[in-house]
Amino acid sequence: MSLRHFIDGTEPGPAGVEAIARRALALSRGAPALRMSKRLISVFMNASLRTRLSLDAACHGLGIHHQSVTPGANAWALEMRDGAVMMDGDKAEHVADAVRVLGQYGHALAVRAFAGLQNRDEDRADPVISAFVKHAPGPVVNLESARYHPLQGLADAATWFDHLGQVQGQRIALVWAPHPRALPAAVPQQVLLTASLLGARITVAHPEGFDLDPEIVTRAQGLAAAGGGEVQVTTDRRAAIEGTQVIVAKSWSGFSGYGRREDEARQRETLGAWRVDQPDFALASPGAGFMHCLPLRRNVVATDAVVDGPSSWVVQTAGLRMHTAMALLEQLLGGDPWTA
Amino acid sequence: MSLRHFIDGTEPGPAGVEAIARRALALSRGAPALRMSKRLISVFMNASLRTRLSLDAACHGLGIHHQSVTPGANAWALEMRDGAVMMDGDKAEHVADAVRVLGQYGHALAVRAFAGLQNRDEDRADPVISAFVKHAPGPVVNLESARYHPLQGLADAATWFDHLGQVQGQRIALVWAPHPRALPAAVPQQVLLTASLLGARITVAHPEGFDLDPEIVTRAQGLAAAGGGEVQVTTDRRAAIEGTQVIVAKSWSGFSGYGRREDEARQRETLGAWRVDQPDFALASPGAGFMHCLPLRRNVVATDAVVDGPSSWVVQTAGLRMHTAMALLEQLLGGDPWTA
Amino acid sequence: MSLRHFIDGTEPGPAGVEAIARRALALSRGAPALRMSKRLISVFMNASLRTRLSLDAACHGLGIHHQSVTPGANAWALEMRDGAVMMDGDKAEHVADAVRVLGQYGHALAVRAFAGLQNRDEDRADPVISAFVKHAPGPVVNLESARYHPLQGLADAATWFDHLGQVQGQRIALVWAPHPRALPAAVPQQVLLTASLLGARITVAHPEGFDLDPEIVTRAQGLAAAGGGEVQVTTDRRAAIEGTQVIVAKSWSGFSGYGRREDEARQRETLGAWRVDQPDFALASPGAGFMHCLPLRRNVVATDAVVDGPSSWVVQTAGLRMHTAMALLEQLLGGDPWTA
Repeated sequence: MSLRHFIDGTEPGPAGVEAIARRALALSRGAPALRMSKRLISVFMNASLRTRLSLDAACHGLGIHHQSVTPGANAWALEMRDGAVMMDGDKAEHVADAVRVLGQYGHALAVRAFAGLQNRDEDRADPVISAFVKHAPGPVVNLESARYHPLQGLADAATWFDHLGQVQGQRIALVWAPHPRALPAAVPQQVLLTASLLGARITVAHPEGFDLDPEIVTRAQGLAAAGGGEVQVTTDRRAAIEGTQVIVAKSWSGFSGYGRREDEARQRETLGAWRVDQPDFALASPGAGFMHCLPLRRNVVATDAVVDGPSSWVVQTAGLRMHTAMALLEQLLGGDPWTA
Repeated sequence: MSLRHFIDGTEPGPAGVEAIARRALALSRGAPALRMSKRLISVFMNASLRTRLSLDAACHGLGIHHQSVTPGANAWALEMRDGAVMMDGDKAEHVADAVRVLGQYGHALAVRAFAGLQNRDEDRADPVISAFVKHAPGPVVNLESARYHPLQGLADAATWFDHLGQVQGQRIALVWAPHPRALPAAVPQQVLLTASLLGARITVAHPEGFDLDPEIVTRAQGLAAAGGGEVQVTTDRRAAIEGTQVIVAKSWSGFSGYGRREDEARQRETLGAWRVDQPDFALASPGAGFMHCLPLRRNVVATDAVVDGPSSWVVQTAGLRMHTAMALLEQLLGGDPWTA
Repeated sequence: MSLRHFIDGTEPGPAGVEAIARRALALSRGAPALRMSKRLISVFMNASLRTRLSLDAACHGLGIHHQSVTPGANAWALEMRDGAVMMDGDKAEHVADAVRVLGQYGHALAVRAFAGLQNRDEDRADPVISAFVKHAPGPVVNLESARYHPLQGLADAATWFDHLGQVQGQRIALVWAPHPRALPAAVPQQVLLTASLLGARITVAHPEGFDLDPEIVTRAQGLAAAGGGEVQVTTDRRAAIEGTQVIVAKSWSGFSGYGRREDEARQRETLGAWRVDQPDFALASPGAGFMHCLPLRRNVVATDAVVDGPSSWVVQTAGLRMHTAMALLEQLLGGDPWTA
């Protein structure tokens, strides 16, 4: 595989994602890592625990020097619009200039910029990650954009390969969960894309109105069809869970409801029954696992009993964030000796 | 000595603390350090200058990779309560999950979380450092909790050994000092515990109402008795200082006055005479030293003449923060060859 | 050359600045760097993108460990006044103590503290960098103070040597540019000092009232006279640009107008014609370059067509920030083998 950027997680193809996932599992068990004297600069527009720290640990494990910058906090807020007359007091630097400059200091750039959830078309255009790809002289890694969270997708994939042996044809339920706030859909969309790329049989269950971007769903259906899997979408939570091998929980805001946030907020208050609880695992396949990208609102998204119980894979997946980032960076920056 | 965590500073025992302090002095004079390819993650809930930077320099000196995270700033604010239904908008992550995850990225975790000074029982339970110890898979280092500041205690101990040769039986005055704000008592409590563990004869002097937690005082009395020292508590500042070899100054809020902050604020305005000044050193033993953990409100806690004068050990102690952290991390993460 | 501190950029003298600039160009083309096992601590009172990240990359390139601290954010806000009675609630630490302490953890300190633009005499005294120089046990590097930005000056110099072959006798126009805000003059003053030190023929053009500190202008005139160059100051923008080989654009607030910011703000609104645009390069010498320190307000300071056009050297100069910092740190911390 020859990777340039890592934006939506499908770039390596199904065999490439499997190779990265299996390499990550080997690294987690002590396989020696490549060493490379390079620099990676990460740009965080939003908070991060796992992503920043696992990336940092991954870089250390490979000998890569990692430095972070936070526009608006310890660096200038960035203007994103091409052609803007930059009279806005807060935005002192254009993303084009920042990216061209940082791209000279680091061998790769990584960036996190969540959906604003104000403007559907703008979020769909994924303006920040798109600007990085447009202007960076080297590879760009997506640390969660408005639409995608591909490093989380890799850690999910590694977890699936570890527990299920293979992913193709396996049943995965992606289930909407309650939350006090409207949240972006990058994570569920990534689960959907990564699972369908790997040929899983994935069912998305959400309440009426909490739909995902139909463009992503259609794309996932195509990937699944090509890979021997399938994608179903339902509002029947129980149907999605019955017999599934994995319950991936996540809250998200509805795609068709952009601009109707107050309606959604009222609706969310009535949806406590979507919280994942122990009885769900009586419906699921024996040995089924509970997954969530974290951070997780305990006893809102899922009960303590589930999160801390024997079905929970959440801490393992979070740990694999480090090893999947290592395996990806080996591909992106260090050539490909371990798959030779 | 075999250390698991480093929370209240007494874990190594008196011989262990002395060994770490003397090792730190040797490192400060150029003794070669152990090298270890490990990662330490520090979590700062509060500001830090010396602690973060000395820890960072110590890690560099040992070859350890160090990365910091600040919940509420560049990472999610943490929920501390077990069993909480996490609907609070700001606290997106539970400490249990954060610690389990970070513990997979770093070989050791370190955390700073000051007393809130709102709830005496809560501060006494030291909830953050306790949660870290409960959930971390590896060693935890306290970077100042509600009750303790053990790395400061090690630097104090190294300073004492350097100037006094030995600590057992030596006279140390821990003297309350003025300050515009109510401050936690972690530092004075640590001075008391470390000095009493090492068998010093320590006198605590504070104005009426500015008492330390009696549980800590009682514990210190027991440690001192076992180690050949003694602990006295007085409101007679002059008696504490006369003939002492060390004046350790620090402001703190009274333990019995939790919840009566306004009274204390008014009282503080009348206590300017507790400021450390040059005449204090005419009362003390010849060659007596002035110590303070820093940051120090100049001309409030102590005069410029004291801080910058020949009796001042404050800059030396702050410098030893690096070497004592190195010596501790050698013990915690690198085995124990230098005491073999 | 033997450097102690690097504050106003003239310390290495004309031959030293040329040597550093040429060494930086060699490093940018792959010359091997010195390796030194040292630590540099940077203190940022203001935001930074290029300066922090290029310094960090430069340190990595030399094997130096770099750590940053931000007083007022992740560390205590600093009191700068000697003799202050420190009752101000926010400023918990005196700069003298912070610098003495940090100077023990790092082999060199670097600091950024912009002009406050409130008090002309205070800014002229450059209180923060001055306090660092006064109290630091080792070298101090200025990362932009109220008056100077010497690392930017080095990158400018490297750019000039790269494009012009030599600097002595070459024509450089330093041209005031529009901006929505009043800005410090550290950058234009640095351009003036560095160019005049190197013997350039420099013309400063600004609207009436946007003068630079006459003390700096006089000093630059002396440097230029000694170096075979000259300094002219004019309000005739066209005259400055005609036939010039370099247009350095920058907005700044007028020195004589300190305290009359509202007048200046109204005046700024009428000065849009000072924006750099393509026709300026028809007036300039063929092959003339456009320079700006960045961040740059696009279509306010200069048009997209200029910034992204063939005359623009801005991205190159920003990239050279890394290599000039490397070359400087080699001199400051690593001896001088490459000029031997």
